[in-house]
Amino acid sequence: MPVPAMNADEIVKLLREEFPQFFYPGCGLSIERVDYANVRVRRHFHEDSVRPGGTISGPTMMELADFAMYVAVFSVAGPVPMAVTTNLNINFLRKPGRGDLVADAKLLKVGKRLVVGEVAIYSEGEPEPVAHVTSTYSMPPQVLQYH
Amino acid sequence: MPVPAMNADEIVKLLREEFPQFFYPGCGLSIERVDYANVRVRRHFHEDSVRPGGTISGPTMMELADFAMYVAVFSVAGPVPMAVTTNLNINFLRKPGRGDLVADAKLLKVGKRLVVGEVAIYSEGEPEPVAHVTSTYSMPPQVLQYH
Amino acid sequence: MPVPAMNADEIVKLLREEFPQFFYPGCGLSIERVDYANVRVRRHFHEDSVRPGGTISGPTMMELADFAMYVAVFSVAGPVPMAVTTNLNINFLRKPGRGDLVADAKLLKVGKRLVVGEVAIYSEGEPEPVAHVTSTYSMPPQVLQYH
Amino acid sequence: MPVPAMNADEIVKLLREEFPQFFYPGCGLSIERVDYANVRVRRHFHEDSVRPGGTISGPTMMELADFAMYVAVFSVAGPVPMAVTTNLNINFLRKPGRGDLVADAKLLKVGKRLVVGEVAIYSEGEPEPVAHVTSTYSMPPQVLQYH
Repeated sequence: MPVPAMNADEIVKLLREEFPQFFYPGCGLSIERVDYANVRVRRHFHEDSVRPGGTISGPTMMELADFAMYVAVFSVAGPVPMAVTTNLNINFLRKPGRGDLVADAKLLKVGKRLVVGEVAIYSEGEPEPVAHVTSTYSMPPQVLQYH
Repeated sequence: MPVPAMNADEIVKLLREEFPQFFYPGCGLSIERVDYANVRVRRHFHEDSVRPGGTISGPTMMELADFAMYVAVFSVAGPVPMAVTTNLNINFLRKPGRGDLVADAKLLKVGKRLVVGEVAIYSEGEPEPVAHVTSTYSMPPQVLQYH
Repeated sequence: MPVPAMNADEIVKLLREEFPQFFYPGCGLSIERVDYANVRVRRHFHEDSVRPGGTISGPTMMELADFAMYVAVFSVAGPVPMAVTTNLNINFLRKPGRGDLVADAKLLKVGKRLVVGEVAIYSEGEPEPVAHVTSTYSMPPQVLQYH
Repeated sequence: MPVPAMNADEIVKLLREEFPQFFYPGCGLSIERVDYANVRVRRHFHEDSVRPGGTISGPTMMELADFAMYVAVFSVAGPVPMAVTTNLNINFLRKPGRGDLVADAKLLKVGKRLVVGEVAIYSEGEPEPVAHVTSTYSMPPQVLQYH
């Protein structure tokens, strides 16, 4: 397994510089593990994401999956904040309860132009996923030309 | 064309009662038009959704698409707040600039158990869509049994 | 509306040369109309595609949608047989009866590297679509560089 | 792990009876393993599926993925030939070479009304998948009511 192109601390630093309105201390998102093409991130529970019945909103899960993919892209390509999502497909499987969400992203293809991955989202402490995502990122033209 | 099962005012009232943490005056979402199986909603511009380069975040568009579909479901099925998204697929097409986003949802199938639709998202004043979404909602068991 | 980069006769000729095992007289697929980024193709009915209940198989519709997108790519990019599908998402809406299938493909984005479109599939003579598809093609590196 | 609701021989027998035009000796599809919610199927190589460059067509992979999901549905629900695909999303990752394709389907959710799964398709002998699929089947109303 190759060494990741950036570690968790480096990715946190990059995100805080590039996305200060989105990723800041207290935003509720954190990075738990960064291996090459394989990362885990977390959404800390917040009452604002709760929906009737005590579940967490779909857009909260979509945002978490997109964040997990973005971190996974950094793990293989280094600091490419201009990488953009081109496609995201989510299947909602079960209603998460009140609690943190954990997302495991794994890249299925690391191409020169496209990076494809899947993300499984879990409600902390539950064995079955609450959502499953596949997503494609498009790399900026110059980035991966030497890979 | 059948009359919509709920009009915009009725849907606004329902959403404020059921989702007070999500849909409230000043939340940035509004309903512009409700026909049967065909609705338009709007995301008012807010600096918090801006990303580097002056564009609007992907999760903001996913949330808007999901909201548009939810309103479209109400337009055919009436007050069914327990309808849930089972699948959402989004293709990001162009980067929206700083400005409102407008989403047009059109239902492709209104079944007893599943409702399928597509959503085109536009940056206000631009002719080409910034994103295209297809999505499926699952209806609660009792709701559509007489349709 | 720009003139299409290839007309139907030119596309038929290209397909017969490049894909003689797939596209030949009697294969059941035909091209009905080619405008720029907007085409119609047809799958002629054949007993081999029938499934229990007298409907047509899902893979038959997926193949037709992929073919429609391929023809639409030619309409904007000219002869690029090495363009490849990277993603296809299909929602099956209604069971088609015994009869021809007609597919209308419309491109949503024509980029240098990615072309995104949607396809609506109809059972001949029926007003409501039997399936809806979105799909992305990746263009070969050299093809669209002057567009 | 529960015992599968049908084993491979029982599924082969059912498919031959219900889909004699699709699944017959020599059709090129076979079932290699059936565990509960987890199956492997195979597409034997045939020249008819070859495309320019010596690769295998996308529709061949879509058909194989749909077949794998269908067998996986039987593994949890027993003989339900009227189960139907409602959604299929495929990402094409690498071009398969000339050779058999193997598809591993794993169910992510077995609900009363919807069954969701993912399928990884491999070119025999290669470690990286050539395509990744997620798909949803809708169960006939009466089938899963006692589950």
